[in-house]
Amino acid sequence: MLPKSRIVNLPVYQPGKPAEEVRKELGLEEVIKLASNENPYGCSPRARAAIEAEFANITQYPDGSSAELTEVLAEHLGVKREQIIFGCGSDEVIALICRAFLLPGDETVMADQTFSVYDTNSQIEGATIIEVPLQGGTHDLEGMLAKVGEKTKIVWICNPNNPTGTIVSDNALRSFLDRVPDHVLVVIDEAYAEYVIDETYTNGISLLSKYPNVIVLRTFSKIYGLASLRIGYGVGQPEVIQLINRVREPFNTSRFGQAAAKASIADQKFVKECREKNAEGIQYLSAEFDRLGLDYFPAHGNFMMVKVNQPGGEVFQAIMKLGIIVRSGFGKYPDYIRVTVGTKEQNVKFIAALEQVLNKDQVQV
Amino acid sequence: MLPKSRIVNLPVYQPGKPAEEVRKELGLEEVIKLASNENPYGCSPRARAAIEAEFANITQYPDGSSAELTEVLAEHLGVKREQIIFGCGSDEVIALICRAFLLPGDETVMADQTFSVYDTNSQIEGATIIEVPLQGGTHDLEGMLAKVGEKTKIVWICNPNNPTGTIVSDNALRSFLDRVPDHVLVVIDEAYAEYVIDETYTNGISLLSKYPNVIVLRTFSKIYGLASLRIGYGVGQPEVIQLINRVREPFNTSRFGQAAAKASIADQKFVKECREKNAEGIQYLSAEFDRLGLDYFPAHGNFMMVKVNQPGGEVFQAIMKLGIIVRSGFGKYPDYIRVTVGTKEQNVKFIAALEQVLNKDQVQV
Repeated sequence: MLPKSRIVNLPVYQPGKPAEEVRKELGLEEVIKLASNENPYGCSPRARAAIEAEFANITQYPDGSSAELTEVLAEHLGVKREQIIFGCGSDEVIALICRAFLLPGDETVMADQTFSVYDTNSQIEGATIIEVPLQGGTHDLEGMLAKVGEKTKIVWICNPNNPTGTIVSDNALRSFLDRVPDHVLVVIDEAYAEYVIDETYTNGISLLSKYPNVIVLRTFSKIYGLASLRIGYGVGQPEVIQLINRVREPFNTSRFGQAAAKASIADQKFVKECREKNAEGIQYLSAEFDRLGLDYFPAHGNFMMVKVNQPGGEVFQAIMKLGIIVRSGFGKYPDYIRVTVGTKEQNVKFIAALEQVLNKDQVQV
Repeated sequence: MLPKSRIVNLPVYQPGKPAEEVRKELGLEEVIKLASNENPYGCSPRARAAIEAEFANITQYPDGSSAELTEVLAEHLGVKREQIIFGCGSDEVIALICRAFLLPGDETVMADQTFSVYDTNSQIEGATIIEVPLQGGTHDLEGMLAKVGEKTKIVWICNPNNPTGTIVSDNALRSFLDRVPDHVLVVIDEAYAEYVIDETYTNGISLLSKYPNVIVLRTFSKIYGLASLRIGYGVGQPEVIQLINRVREPFNTSRFGQAAAKASIADQKFVKECREKNAEGIQYLSAEFDRLGLDYFPAHGNFMMVKVNQPGGEVFQAIMKLGIIVRSGFGKYPDYIRVTVGTKEQNVKFIAALEQVLNKDQVQV
């Protein structure tokens, strides 16, 4: 039983620590999880109603083509139905793209600190990964373009970037797309797009008609608050989407996921409110980081990456003991932590915990 | 944008026609779907309660390791937790196995009429597929063994076989496993295992300690009635399961799927009732097929494959116009249809419709 040699030493994904586990381990009364960029405001009440309405069909396979959801989403985005593919989270769409396109010997270009699923799936396919360092936490599109060659199959642009939260400017992105060769598929991962309020941000969907080699990834796990249900999607040219569909398992999303997503799209009021409250949270956290004299990257998603000037893993551990779970372990940024923007109350508690941890030496004197 | 050439002409999976679609298209009042081997008796009421209890966590990612469900299932099956991997249906476990093990040039052996997902995923990986004809609708294990060589990575045994419903005998299976070389992974797909009442059937789980190269696949989509939720699993040696885990997306099953599956395992009374009612259904349908002079394969799952002595596609269409959806289009058995065992009432209606369709010529005279 010989597996592919290239998968034997693949890293196993490290998810955010579950709040319940931390609560038990540390015997804490309250644990706040600000580790996985989940929506602290829940989801649209319409999602729950849609799930309940779907109970009648619980024994039945979902519609493998997600026809009803596709129709609603296509109208919402202003694209054709044939331009959309759904996945078990946008993670799965990433895996499907790799499975459809990458062969050993192919090259794929990505930032040196970005969403790890691009790297893992490229490794599974045996492609050569070319990492281009972020510049000030932001994708260096000129540097990435310089690495694109004949063997390049896919370029990954995470926008906003996870974990740094930065965005690429409209100018930089269009200039990149104008010059990247046609044979290169450009995947723009916009898992956090709905949170962005910066006017220089480009909605990737608007690029699709001009740049047929672009695929945009989105998800219902973030601002829509449906991470539990595993549903995300890709949008691109029908020909490209059709190819990816050939490697998709027939029933890769659930009935409940489809129903909840469809109902949630209709509730853009909820989305708008979450975006506004998130922007207030970023404003608050930024001001507090300024007060504490901490550097941070300009944040455009629902999370912030802040420099704690000591090993991030230690700060993570110390904050966890105070009942707040954040995220550390970013190889290129060992002295940073990433924190999800929570509710106002959660943000205040996080800042208090962070301040306590960072001032610990002084306090103990 | 050049995809893998081997995926360009992959067949797209043809799911059973949704009842709602047929109802609208044909303007029928009632449509009975006996096409996808779903459970006509619903699911355990505990599943619904578990889903409702999970609403509080709807915004949160599932536990990627499915720890609670794994614990309950491991105890139920009498295996170690490290022996289990979950997938978005057992379909996904099939895809993961292929992704972890198959390389271009590898060979994989399967029956010539079996679950199509083995073939599709082997093709995606570029492996060479060696089909061995069924004998009397049953896996020809001797014939399959004869095709196993140095290049063989995986042998697929669907038991009961989809679509024929047949099982391999305990003797034949053990004799095969005794002689198949150690380097070959033997996947025994037992999606319908819980329906089998035949005493010569081998529960694949019982083989695992003696044959470390076996992986058993099971699902919550069939007797557990949770097809909508997409959750299935594989059981094997910890070392093999760990390898497959390396190509698994971190969050490939939903919170609701995990919760419903966990609750359903605790309700074996429901499973037993479904098994008994299914056995009665098979008895009834067999007697009716005998009365109509129709051949059929001995059925061990929750479906039957019956020879209609004319193009199966035509019988499918004609029965659909009477409000019952079955399945046709099995390449090696063009004059057969496959019908899911329904409730007593559904089975009676199906037989009436089948009889009407088969006697049509006489009726019109």
